[in-house]
Amino acid sequence: MRSIEARENMVSTGMSDQISPLAPKSYPDMPEIDGVRIATAEAGIKYKGRTDLLLMLFDEATSVAGVFTTSKCPSAPVDFCRQNLKSGTARALVVNSGNANAFTGRRGIETVEQTAKAVSDVTGCGTDEVFIASTGVIGEPLDASRFMHLFADMTKTATGTRWNDAGRAIMTTDTYPKYATRTVSLGGHVVTINGISKGAGMIAPDMATMLSFVATDAAISADVLQALLTRHVGGTFNAVTVDSDTSTSDTLILFATGASAKRGAKTITSIDDADLAGFDAALGEVMKSLALQVVRDGEGARKQIEVTVKGGQSDVSAKRIALAIANSPLVKTAVAGEDANWGRVVMAVGKAGEPAERDLLSIYFGDIRVAHEGLRDPAYSEEATSAYMKGEDIAITVELGLGEGKATVWTCDLTKEYVAINGDYRS
Amino acid sequence: MRSIEARENMVSTGMSDQISPLAPKSYPDMPEIDGVRIATAEAGIKYKGRTDLLLMLFDEATSVAGVFTTSKCPSAPVDFCRQNLKSGTARALVVNSGNANAFTGRRGIETVEQTAKAVSDVTGCGTDEVFIASTGVIGEPLDASRFMHLFADMTKTATGTRWNDAGRAIMTTDTYPKYATRTVSLGGHVVTINGISKGAGMIAPDMATMLSFVATDAAISADVLQALLTRHVGGTFNAVTVDSDTSTSDTLILFATGASAKRGAKTITSIDDADLAGFDAALGEVMKSLALQVVRDGEGARKQIEVTVKGGQSDVSAKRIALAIANSPLVKTAVAGEDANWGRVVMAVGKAGEPAERDLLSIYFGDIRVAHEGLRDPAYSEEATSAYMKGEDIAITVELGLGEGKATVWTCDLTKEYVAINGDYRS
Repeated sequence: MRSIEARENMVSTGMSDQISPLAPKSYPDMPEIDGVRIATAEAGIKYKGRTDLLLMLFDEATSVAGVFTTSKCPSAPVDFCRQNLKSGTARALVVNSGNANAFTGRRGIETVEQTAKAVSDVTGCGTDEVFIASTGVIGEPLDASRFMHLFADMTKTATGTRWNDAGRAIMTTDTYPKYATRTVSLGGHVVTINGISKGAGMIAPDMATMLSFVATDAAISADVLQALLTRHVGGTFNAVTVDSDTSTSDTLILFATGASAKRGAKTITSIDDADLAGFDAALGEVMKSLALQVVRDGEGARKQIEVTVKGGQSDVSAKRIALAIANSPLVKTAVAGEDANWGRVVMAVGKAGEPAERDLLSIYFGDIRVAHEGLRDPAYSEEATSAYMKGEDIAITVELGLGEGKATVWTCDLTKEYVAINGDYRS
Repeated sequence: MRSIEARENMVSTGMSDQISPLAPKSYPDMPEIDGVRIATAEAGIKYKGRTDLLLMLFDEATSVAGVFTTSKCPSAPVDFCRQNLKSGTARALVVNSGNANAFTGRRGIETVEQTAKAVSDVTGCGTDEVFIASTGVIGEPLDASRFMHLFADMTKTATGTRWNDAGRAIMTTDTYPKYATRTVSLGGHVVTINGISKGAGMIAPDMATMLSFVATDAAISADVLQALLTRHVGGTFNAVTVDSDTSTSDTLILFATGASAKRGAKTITSIDDADLAGFDAALGEVMKSLALQVVRDGEGARKQIEVTVKGGQSDVSAKRIALAIANSPLVKTAVAGEDANWGRVVMAVGKAGEPAERDLLSIYFGDIRVAHEGLRDPAYSEEATSAYMKGEDIAITVELGLGEGKATVWTCDLTKEYVAINGDYRS
């Protein structure tokens, strides 16, 4: 484990000047993934004195799956990745920070095509095996000539040991890099899953978006990989919200190099393969850890909020209500103020538009039931609740009493710092 | 016109301690409405040293229409009003501030019934002709005995001249009272429309909600009144948002005393009556003025934002996109920071989920086209745009280029003061 770096160091690298109080106390030493090589570079796209370019190279026969933003105005790289995903194989990933290459029209598409061509020229892979993600300012042209010339040297020097560097190169307004790793047995062979992510607001054109890249040396076919990713994304990356704003660039890609097959492991080709159970759970843990690290780095965040809704008419209905609570500015400011303001939770339940009956509602802060059957709980203790609200992790639970639907989502509080970070003059 | 009262005076009455910079420079002297008598009182429900109870009495045969919150957890008064609206006639309106009587279970219903009974006892009207609205804290029982005894005296002293007092009695976190009045000819007879409103956040259990009451001496049947109200609410009260949070108590009621009929005016019984045109327009103006005054008193607001979306696939689609922009924390903080951050507008268009094509989008701040056909406008001037953003009223226009759908909504910027107002410890 490495200890978290000093704030002074963060400042010097152009990142946010204050590490989130919710940052992990230490980072994992990320192991190698057989079949993955990594290089980073300082291309100087926007930031100075820090890396802003990541090249990840994959051995042949690496399968790939992805999930992307639902935005109707996605960035050029998102369009490109969606297209390339059809082949099911990947040989390279290029990520730059500092410019999102979003809303850049025809030029943005050219930049993506030039980037893929440059990687193809250097590595010999097809342009349809290159995946690209960009994060940073929206609407500014991104000139591929700023970094294309670096790929040759990066390809030569890439090694399997640079996962921690990779996590840093993709940061924007993040106050800390985000890593997760698990080792698990798959059909009797040990495989590793590594992941990195970045994001601090759901989007902020000058800065943040949500990107995550996960790789494993397991041998899993692309269709199974996609099924696994889709299974877990709903309860992880699609269950976190900082400000309800959806990026044009959100990208989550999962690579499986299949290197374990060289060690004798079989290739998993069915989502129903019983051997998958442990891997499936470990992948879910990696994704949840990465998603929660994004929330805990939410712009201006001082507290993590977990919202659980039970007893909904369906899981989908419960999730809509949970998100209405998690996205409510009034709920989020109340938590920032350490105020167990359950009236605002009632409000958010009501505005979700989903089935709910006022007089059946129960609301908990932590284990404390503050409201029951449409009334303040008779046993409600302002003192106990106030003490609970001073904590760093706040759990709000709503019981609707209608059915079996259940969902949990995570967010952070809304502080003056959020407004300061996002309301400062664009320079 | 009265000049706006001094900040010192506001403090002493328990209201917010700083008048919104977007407050009107003066208030209209509200004329009498023939058939309406008004009294206010200090019931001491929560506030001290200010009025917190309004009783409005209407002559016989007053017709009534109403629109209420879409919340699935409405307050007891909202349920009561919805029920009473069926009769189509009104004799009294009771409004209290300081306690919303929301999420108060069976007791809340009893309070409403006791209130209506007390008014009925004093005035002789039916309880189904009494309309009630409450605004303030959610989840605290509201004891009707705190104010019921005041109705007898209020009924005796009520006069037609107290509209300005009425506007003050219903305030919560509002930093100024909200009035609008118009005089218009209806079928050759002059009639008056008066309105008051309150609201500063869409909801805030300790404080705000949106209430508005409009009265006229025109003679218009209840069904026509309801059609008029419904016609205008979409482009006025349902086109403003402060924080996307919907109150449990939002209430808009329109009363028509019909007193003009005594002066020889005919009673309007058809929405298609050509004589209605002028009245219809004037009613829309009153409602728009009241709704915009709510936005301009938005908690922490420093700027008004008008968002217009054109070229949508339909009006409904355009309005959804406009609201996605108006509710985006990132757009609202950018305006607070006087940053023409059109990338965030693109983001909000994309997240709305409505048909939109990135490469057809044009975006304007005021008259300045900042983006065109999926790119920054070649003629974009940072200097001119920055100068525009320093203004108090910011207009954002998006052209989707898809169809004829069009909508305009209004909001305010998101400032640190919003967080401070809503994040302070509940005392």
